[in-house]
Amino acid sequence: MIKVAILGAGGLGRGMAQMLEHRKGFQLVGIADTEGYAYCDTGLNFKTLQSVAHVHLYPEAGVKTTPKQAIMQLLQAHGSQLDAIFMALPNLPVTFYKDITQQIATETNFKGVIVDALKRTQAVEMLLTINKKLAQEDILYITGAGATPGFLTTIAAVAAQSFVEVKHINIHFGVGVSNWEQYRATIREDFLHMPGFTPAMVEAMTDADIEAELDKRNGLLELVDMEHADDIILELTGLCHRDQITVGGLVDARNAKKPVATTVTIEGVTVAGQTTKHQFIVGNETTMVDNVCGPACGFMASGVQLYNLGLRGLKTSAEVMPRFSAEGIHKQVAQSL
Amino acid sequence: MIKVAILGAGGLGRGMAQMLEHRKGFQLVGIADTEGYAYCDTGLNFKTLQSVAHVHLYPEAGVKTTPKQAIMQLLQAHGSQLDAIFMALPNLPVTFYKDITQQIATETNFKGVIVDALKRTQAVEMLLTINKKLAQEDILYITGAGATPGFLTTIAAVAAQSFVEVKHINIHFGVGVSNWEQYRATIREDFLHMPGFTPAMVEAMTDADIEAELDKRNGLLELVDMEHADDIILELTGLCHRDQITVGGLVDARNAKKPVATTVTIEGVTVAGQTTKHQFIVGNETTMVDNVCGPACGFMASGVQLYNLGLRGLKTSAEVMPRFSAEGIHKQVAQSL
Repeated sequence: MIKVAILGAGGLGRGMAQMLEHRKGFQLVGIADTEGYAYCDTGLNFKTLQSVAHVHLYPEAGVKTTPKQAIMQLLQAHGSQLDAIFMALPNLPVTFYKDITQQIATETNFKGVIVDALKRTQAVEMLLTINKKLAQEDILYITGAGATPGFLTTIAAVAAQSFVEVKHINIHFGVGVSNWEQYRATIREDFLHMPGFTPAMVEAMTDADIEAELDKRNGLLELVDMEHADDIILELTGLCHRDQITVGGLVDARNAKKPVATTVTIEGVTVAGQTTKHQFIVGNETTMVDNVCGPACGFMASGVQLYNLGLRGLKTSAEVMPRFSAEGIHKQVAQSL
Repeated sequence: MIKVAILGAGGLGRGMAQMLEHRKGFQLVGIADTEGYAYCDTGLNFKTLQSVAHVHLYPEAGVKTTPKQAIMQLLQAHGSQLDAIFMALPNLPVTFYKDITQQIATETNFKGVIVDALKRTQAVEMLLTINKKLAQEDILYITGAGATPGFLTTIAAVAAQSFVEVKHINIHFGVGVSNWEQYRATIREDFLHMPGFTPAMVEAMTDADIEAELDKRNGLLELVDMEHADDIILELTGLCHRDQITVGGLVDARNAKKPVATTVTIEGVTVAGQTTKHQFIVGNETTMVDNVCGPACGFMASGVQLYNLGLRGLKTSAEVMPRFSAEGIHKQVAQSL
């Protein structure tokens, strides 16, 4: 079994806890939020987790920590017992992933695979600067391993294989959230991608401010030309320049039903010189949890396989084939190699 | 540069020669057909190749060999100079790939990556029996790395990541061939997947017999419930049972225009218990060369990367993320590790 810790226990973190129970070969052993963590070597249970407001209240496994120190205290206590970490931490400054990862790498005994579901290009650029450090500290970090970037980026990277030149990749998503309060952090982050909002403004907004903005728009947020890391991730694979990749979408913060189908359109040139398009259409009944946490599980499973082969440092979702089942996979301990 | 040899110089082999010139980081150095081979360490040229009926007629690089010994004679002479081999050899008995690979592994100095574009499930089953042998002989073999299995299988394997259970994967292709004589071997293999034809019957058919069968059908071949290795390949990743995967299609042997669009439909169950479908639609203007040889290049590039990490033995296309550009990648020679 791949032993997993989830950092963050909002909608995304809890979604991952649920997903891990359904996919073979994973065991959730740790989870952290702002106030504490829960750790149990024989596994944490999704239902029990849903019954507590904060994870330190998890019966027998919960530990209340110094405020905002839960992640480090969890990993300092149990880092060496983990195979993989999922970062379920949206809407933070672009330096956050780099800073926390560097801290994990140097101040804990965690040696293994880290997977994130970040969105912003700049956050990936920051992570690239610590590539060598990660390799030195025996960490394999797979970035952009959620839905977009992640699931849809990887589809685009495979789809592009028919072409000798990629002209344009367009990701257009529809998201429906029945109750935005469950996904506060994610909806907040969406505001960063709307015209007229800056990170500082969004950070200063109260929940009531967010609610008021949603009222103005009847709950619909049209996101255009988003700074999504799909661009840098696909550029790094040599597919095309980042300017040829566009990401946008329509979010309905008041209905679970998606306002439009999510699509990826890959336009390219064939060996005979013809321009054509492949298209991938995502099933409307899938939710953010399905399309973020499912693929992230897949990247974790193949991440651990590649870790066992000796791969270290920073990789992107477009370089790794996600694996459906993790059965039979676990991190090889150095001594047993 | 990844130094590549192509085994086979029919439509598929020549298609690959053309594709390699367009994708960065590859160099075609060898090619073999039934009568001989061509080898040039500084690269073979697609145009020159197209100007000769048999590859041993390639100016300065051509070598006429003992009949049917071209593959082995090419690899015995130059095996150690190659990074990767593409098997462009369709419509052969199901034991063929296993036999020739075993022979390459034991009787030549080739150490590197082999990629095939085979179709049949049984051929993969045969290859699985030599997994250990391949590993011992320092070979990484990626099977089913063409269009189906290959391109579309990999799309399905990524798409399935949203689901907690896969119900059904259906690959339905449209193929248009303006002049079937260019793809004799491939069209012949298609007959194996039509009701009423056995491998022995197809082998005994003359080109005139094939032509007569095409006449009866106005050039259209409807292929149903095909034995395509997509099934075993996806089963091996833990996605679902092979019976849940179906492959069929419509081939027009007289028109370059595809009679229907090629689609992959992935039906699965979400974490919330909903059943839904993702669909991938292939651009109509892409040809067999685009969708077989393009992805095969991608699998070769990542194959060499994984080879450098130490991966050996038999892997399938659904386990490997194809890579668009091979720039900067070449096989690390053992001494320099």
